[in-house]
Amino acid sequence: AKLWGGRFEDSVTDAVEKFTESISFDKALYSHDITGSRAHASMLARQGLITDDDRDKILDGLDVIKGQIESGEFVWRTDREDVHMNIEAALTDLVGEPAKKLHTARSRNDQVCTDFRLWCRDAIDAIVLRIRKLQVALVKLALKNENLIVPGYTHMQRAQPVLLPHLLLAYVEPLERDALRLLDCRARLNFCPLGACALAGTGLPIDRFMTSEALGFTAPMRNSIDAVSDRDFVLEFLSANSITAVHLSRLGEEWVLWASEEFGFIVPSDSVSTGSSIMPQKKNPDPMELVRGKSARVIGDLVSLLVLCKGLPHAYNRDLQEDKEPVFDSVKTIMGMLEVSAEFAENITYNQERIKSALPAGHLDATTLADYLVKKGIPFRTSHDIVGRSVAFCVSRNCRLEDLSLDELRSISPTFDKDVHEYLGVEKAIKNFSSYGSTGSECVSNQLDYWIAKLELSR
Amino acid sequence: AKLWGGRFEDSVTDAVEKFTESISFDKALYSHDITGSRAHASMLARQGLITDDDRDKILDGLDVIKGQIESGEFVWRTDREDVHMNIEAALTDLVGEPAKKLHTARSRNDQVCTDFRLWCRDAIDAIVLRIRKLQVALVKLALKNENLIVPGYTHMQRAQPVLLPHLLLAYVEPLERDALRLLDCRARLNFCPLGACALAGTGLPIDRFMTSEALGFTAPMRNSIDAVSDRDFVLEFLSANSITAVHLSRLGEEWVLWASEEFGFIVPSDSVSTGSSIMPQKKNPDPMELVRGKSARVIGDLVSLLVLCKGLPHAYNRDLQEDKEPVFDSVKTIMGMLEVSAEFAENITYNQERIKSALPAGHLDATTLADYLVKKGIPFRTSHDIVGRSVAFCVSRNCRLEDLSLDELRSISPTFDKDVHEYLGVEKAIKNFSSYGSTGSECVSNQLDYWIAKLELSR
Amino acid sequence: AKLWGGRFEDSVTDAVEKFTESISFDKALYSHDITGSRAHASMLARQGLITDDDRDKILDGLDVIKGQIESGEFVWRTDREDVHMNIEAALTDLVGEPAKKLHTARSRNDQVCTDFRLWCRDAIDAIVLRIRKLQVALVKLALKNENLIVPGYTHMQRAQPVLLPHLLLAYVEPLERDALRLLDCRARLNFCPLGACALAGTGLPIDRFMTSEALGFTAPMRNSIDAVSDRDFVLEFLSANSITAVHLSRLGEEWVLWASEEFGFIVPSDSVSTGSSIMPQKKNPDPMELVRGKSARVIGDLVSLLVLCKGLPHAYNRDLQEDKEPVFDSVKTIMGMLEVSAEFAENITYNQERIKSALPAGHLDATTLADYLVKKGIPFRTSHDIVGRSVAFCVSRNCRLEDLSLDELRSISPTFDKDVHEYLGVEKAIKNFSSYGSTGSECVSNQLDYWIAKLELSR
Amino acid sequence: AKLWGGRFEDSVTDAVEKFTESISFDKALYSHDITGSRAHASMLARQGLITDDDRDKILDGLDVIKGQIESGEFVWRTDREDVHMNIEAALTDLVGEPAKKLHTARSRNDQVCTDFRLWCRDAIDAIVLRIRKLQVALVKLALKNENLIVPGYTHMQRAQPVLLPHLLLAYVEPLERDALRLLDCRARLNFCPLGACALAGTGLPIDRFMTSEALGFTAPMRNSIDAVSDRDFVLEFLSANSITAVHLSRLGEEWVLWASEEFGFIVPSDSVSTGSSIMPQKKNPDPMELVRGKSARVIGDLVSLLVLCKGLPHAYNRDLQEDKEPVFDSVKTIMGMLEVSAEFAENITYNQERIKSALPAGHLDATTLADYLVKKGIPFRTSHDIVGRSVAFCVSRNCRLEDLSLDELRSISPTFDKDVHEYLGVEKAIKNFSSYGSTGSECVSNQLDYWIAKLELSR
Repeated sequence: AKLWGGRFEDSVTDAVEKFTESISFDKALYSHDITGSRAHASMLARQGLITDDDRDKILDGLDVIKGQIESGEFVWRTDREDVHMNIEAALTDLVGEPAKKLHTARSRNDQVCTDFRLWCRDAIDAIVLRIRKLQVALVKLALKNENLIVPGYTHMQRAQPVLLPHLLLAYVEPLERDALRLLDCRARLNFCPLGACALAGTGLPIDRFMTSEALGFTAPMRNSIDAVSDRDFVLEFLSANSITAVHLSRLGEEWVLWASEEFGFIVPSDSVSTGSSIMPQKKNPDPMELVRGKSARVIGDLVSLLVLCKGLPHAYNRDLQEDKEPVFDSVKTIMGMLEVSAEFAENITYNQERIKSALPAGHLDATTLADYLVKKGIPFRTSHDIVGRSVAFCVSRNCRLEDLSLDELRSISPTFDKDVHEYLGVEKAIKNFSSYGSTGSECVSNQLDYWIAKLELSR
Repeated sequence: AKLWGGRFEDSVTDAVEKFTESISFDKALYSHDITGSRAHASMLARQGLITDDDRDKILDGLDVIKGQIESGEFVWRTDREDVHMNIEAALTDLVGEPAKKLHTARSRNDQVCTDFRLWCRDAIDAIVLRIRKLQVALVKLALKNENLIVPGYTHMQRAQPVLLPHLLLAYVEPLERDALRLLDCRARLNFCPLGACALAGTGLPIDRFMTSEALGFTAPMRNSIDAVSDRDFVLEFLSANSITAVHLSRLGEEWVLWASEEFGFIVPSDSVSTGSSIMPQKKNPDPMELVRGKSARVIGDLVSLLVLCKGLPHAYNRDLQEDKEPVFDSVKTIMGMLEVSAEFAENITYNQERIKSALPAGHLDATTLADYLVKKGIPFRTSHDIVGRSVAFCVSRNCRLEDLSLDELRSISPTFDKDVHEYLGVEKAIKNFSSYGSTGSECVSNQLDYWIAKLELSR
Repeated sequence: AKLWGGRFEDSVTDAVEKFTESISFDKALYSHDITGSRAHASMLARQGLITDDDRDKILDGLDVIKGQIESGEFVWRTDREDVHMNIEAALTDLVGEPAKKLHTARSRNDQVCTDFRLWCRDAIDAIVLRIRKLQVALVKLALKNENLIVPGYTHMQRAQPVLLPHLLLAYVEPLERDALRLLDCRARLNFCPLGACALAGTGLPIDRFMTSEALGFTAPMRNSIDAVSDRDFVLEFLSANSITAVHLSRLGEEWVLWASEEFGFIVPSDSVSTGSSIMPQKKNPDPMELVRGKSARVIGDLVSLLVLCKGLPHAYNRDLQEDKEPVFDSVKTIMGMLEVSAEFAENITYNQERIKSALPAGHLDATTLADYLVKKGIPFRTSHDIVGRSVAFCVSRNCRLEDLSLDELRSISPTFDKDVHEYLGVEKAIKNFSSYGSTGSECVSNQLDYWIAKLELSR
Repeated sequence: AKLWGGRFEDSVTDAVEKFTESISFDKALYSHDITGSRAHASMLARQGLITDDDRDKILDGLDVIKGQIESGEFVWRTDREDVHMNIEAALTDLVGEPAKKLHTARSRNDQVCTDFRLWCRDAIDAIVLRIRKLQVALVKLALKNENLIVPGYTHMQRAQPVLLPHLLLAYVEPLERDALRLLDCRARLNFCPLGACALAGTGLPIDRFMTSEALGFTAPMRNSIDAVSDRDFVLEFLSANSITAVHLSRLGEEWVLWASEEFGFIVPSDSVSTGSSIMPQKKNPDPMELVRGKSARVIGDLVSLLVLCKGLPHAYNRDLQEDKEPVFDSVKTIMGMLEVSAEFAENITYNQERIKSALPAGHLDATTLADYLVKKGIPFRTSHDIVGRSVAFCVSRNCRLEDLSLDELRSISPTFDKDVHEYLGVEKAIKNFSSYGSTGSECVSNQLDYWIAKLELSR
């Protein structure tokens, strides 16, 4: 029989019970539910709403139940609907009368929000930790290949040469924003709904500040209706995960391409590759394909929750029960994506020879040549035009800019002088970059130092 | 060791194995996988690619494995990655050498598409069946309340009176389109990818028409690359489910509102209601709230798959492994939504007394009055204006249109005549509707007959 | 003053008027609105609800207004809210009294649905036409490069050689399903809501079958509430567009990659490329990047509409006004994507030399070699293993499979015989493919013939 | 001719030009583009890259162009592609040679990101202002109805009585988080990409800190590739808007319901209502229906951008041009939603009489009665059960809890005592709430004081 069964004559049908149950997934909250109940029971006792003896029996009973759950002994019952009712009913089986007092001045509406906020808080901490680990893996990979020059792309066309560490740090930077975004979300959700009860609060003399503090929240939520109705904290959390997932999908795309025969810039080790059931020669970068692909479900989870909350009137509606699975899925997925990306980073080798031989193609030094002309006083638009014609000349001759003689260059523009060859070729191009944040060797080295310090690494 | 392990020296890391495995969810395809393998083995034998003896050993072995899976004895191994490899490897353990020939002229790429199309085909049939059941439940509910007049709403404002069966059939109609949309999708996906192999087909003398026919497909797919690369069949399937889900969410919203104290039009039985853990007087229409809410995950599943497929180059990419869980979730959810909606329909009572007493409010007969004036030759825009003023007069007097005397009406417009009272009041308004598809008693009765015949019911 | 203003004392505020207006976008429906009104007026006259003279004045007036709109003279007024009211009010200004009778037995609720279904019907025809044009462009491109062998990829790794026409037809096939999906949608939406009026039908003696037929609909909709409430026809339409968009995004991705320096397989002409404002050497395949990118808004449009419709109770709600802009945007976008893709197809050249020199890498003939062993009686799993070891041997020696001597091959497996060299090298591999739908020359030629006939082209 | 046209022989086709242009929408950035160019030119001059005279001509020219744009004289040209090229080319037409130097050490890649971040920063400020105005309107509405008791709902079932101000503050609270979320986003995006150039920085001696400071940014971005590649700032912005939109959709739903005949709790004034073209008696709360509905497009815009960015490799890809329209649409929509919600709040009257007469239904005091029993020492689960039976007794007798005599109550539980009637009836129930954040009169009054102070209002 349901705990709310007082005035009900019939029990629900099997189909309804199966459709409305949440125990199959919300048992994941068990630990936070018990933590919340412990704080609640302690507060009830201090406020004189239950006796110290009741409290002790409740706390001891909850300990026993937690042990049972963690050892796998605990029997989850679908007829007891959800994690809260399962634990409370088991507690009643175990300690009797005192358990019936635990739900004093509490409703499942505020209870589940409290549990879920605690769960999300821990999940954010776990994700941020994995973001840090991926940042570390990327910085270490950068240090292993500190002077490697690779093509930089726009429109998937070769554009300018860049130092590999510069490119890798272009993934470390967004991850930093991802972590900070999650921490902003954490700070905003870290308020305590407990004591909001069903929606209106209670007339019993509870102390919401005590439970809030005991559970590590910043403060109790100010409005009891808001406390049980809103799920913006999960919307924000899943938005943050989606943005991180998009970042990782881009890394996945890049590494999948770089591992292709055509690029051939990276070689993943066997330990992060898989083979084909029919093509014996294949060595596939599956983990990064899945990192790219799994971004889709993180985004889908966010959309689910936005659709769920749209147009719901106040206060709690049963629809909100659907808030948990997308969050659990999003968190599990993003953690896997981060872990596997870090592991992949630790298991790839850059094919320096192949990269080096590939660099001459694509006129990566063209912009450097344009800068040269600007330094000589040519307006940028004019210098852009001159270099454009120089490149066209190379294309027609199938050669590189650095292969052009001074005379040939001068036939295009008399401004070219002997010193022009200090600006041609990718190594010289890299040396010439100097602006803050650019791919110049010194700039990149400074940036690496910044991250080494920040991530507490050493060279 | 993986079956593709020939040239690999290291096995993948634990994190990668865990991240890339699919056995935890794709085992749901076991039955279709075995069906596909049976057809493939039979074809291989007929084409002389394996002996009849090999075939028989394979077929018998597959029978044994199917039995083991269904009795729960079968041990699914994560190190064997997916359902295909689990079954093939178990078959090898069981029957030895012949099993090694089963994967002749087949790749997991075409195998999984074949399995998945078979699975979707069955799922569509199961969903369509549940759509029919819900249509039946709605028509029966209409028949139970055949002459009940209820307010019809636009903008959630009372607009015109309608017969309840008319309103219920307004849910039966979209469900019909939902079923037909699914069947169109079924017809479009019912083509056989088997024999496309990895992506290019094979040089072995297979007969794709034979396997296609054996598996109930319309024909083999014409292009082997398309066969393994595209997932438009799941996108179409999940789109269809999303549209159905939106329809059901609207039904959910309506019934939740109608069960409220303010409407008070329907009373769900205890068997489809739940109570509150803190408010003993509550009786909540949770199943329909969840029907409304679960539409969100069906939409989220569709979005996941659209995002997944966006921008993937040809042919198979590992991202596509992520195609299954959203489909499994969408199907499970939509089936539950349909079942529970039907069960709810069977368990609600219309509060005829409450509805009847509520009808006079809202001037539901205003449009009928405007039609009256049009029949008298007044241009519609003028008659709309006259009725507008009549309503304003009623509002100022806090009365109904039917309460106005002929003199009062004539003071607004001299066109009003004695017969005007045959057009006032909701019962008379209903009687006056006569256009095809309208809420007039005869029209609705005809529509009910249509559905009774179509759904093979009887009055 | 609004046409519904009868009992209203104040007009709406400026902010509300601006927020709720739709004339800025729904004027796109003007032509279909006039077509609908013409059919409605003709029916009203035949049913004796207006005189023939009224009808003629209405029809003539509508002609004049259509002319004014198309010549740009017509003044759209925001205070007249929407396209329907603008045209009706202008008609009243123009022809006086008869215009006030046009809205007899009609509401904006059924009027807008009628207009919108007519508009969607035309839009589908226009899209299907553009799908055909893209199919033609792809088939022509295939014919221009009929014998070109290119690498086939899975996991972005080289897998097997394929004929370019085979790959191009792998885009033609999904486009065919896209067209058929749209035509299914067209058939399902081609039912007439006109006469459903606000939601309940009317008591005036209209003939819905007449207007339905005059407007080219299959039949009037059976249920008036359904007719004005549901938007599943746009959800289905936008789903179909989203699937097409995903297909095109994949083509975009592939061509962007193939145009890169690393692949170098295609060269787009200047007429479909753009340059860089800073890097003079760049030639970017922007149109296909945008084809890939614009898939995002087509998907976003679908999501908007799904969210919009979720949880709306019956019948018409003002929310539904938001149904139009996403559809207009989706249609405009998908048409542009199709057109530009076709134009790109007409403007690319395959770099045959580069492709040819690239083919030896990647052991594309490995599967063919495995098939060879199967033909010799080796079980597939064993042959897969033998070829795996052969590839590993090649990798260690940095050579191709075809470079191995018979002795070297025999040292791996004694089954290899003299005839093995008829299976090695990409040209021979292609020749060996023979299964239906495979990349074998004859199979592909047959497929080309199929499409040439279907698209009414000639070789 | 395009500004990048140096090596191009053909110009792009019309279809490509139309498909790839952005001037039709990105001209919205004109003011921020000019601001950015002014800062850039000043920096170039101070660094000696252009002369002071060049700078002055550029600055004067930009002033002229800004004036032309704002007076409507400026001619936007599609053949000049985008806002940046239009302004630069117009500047060249105007001031000649110096204009050609403006693009020194700048690319459109960093330019557009700079403009867009500036635009988003202003948009966030404008949205936050409108959030504040809505909060003010809600608090003022609360003050106008300070002691009004209304039913509180869960599952759309009456649950407990609440003070109207308590309910309205339950919308003010989430709006506060919305504002803070936007401000976090603003702080995170307020870093300067200018000087990142195409992707790699430059070799010219620019001062990125100077431009960053001049434009009010916190600092220049640390990594030039990251600066031009990432769009996480718009993803975060649109996520924040989506969450706000969801909040407003809930308000819309509630007010639409409350304005219905069935609830009848609020009466919107004519100035925020609209009528029907066919039903003269209707008065529809259209603005709030559209607030609810328009949440859909804000969510769709977010999804578009997530899909857009998924899987894009570094650095800039043309796909990213599609980042602007969804943002412009999201901002325009959310601003309208906020404004109209505030205006609606200012134009509704609570129907106090109707609400008061509705309160007795629904046993809203049941929880208060349960609290009473708890205070008497009954364990909560037992008291919940007793009250459940009391409610069932009332339902069977069709009476209220407060109608039960002490004897009747005692027949259910002997714990009931004379003082029980101090806990029955909604007014007494409200008085009994006392917990922090609850709906008790004093608690709510304190909360109102908090918001009055915070929003700088007065009682």
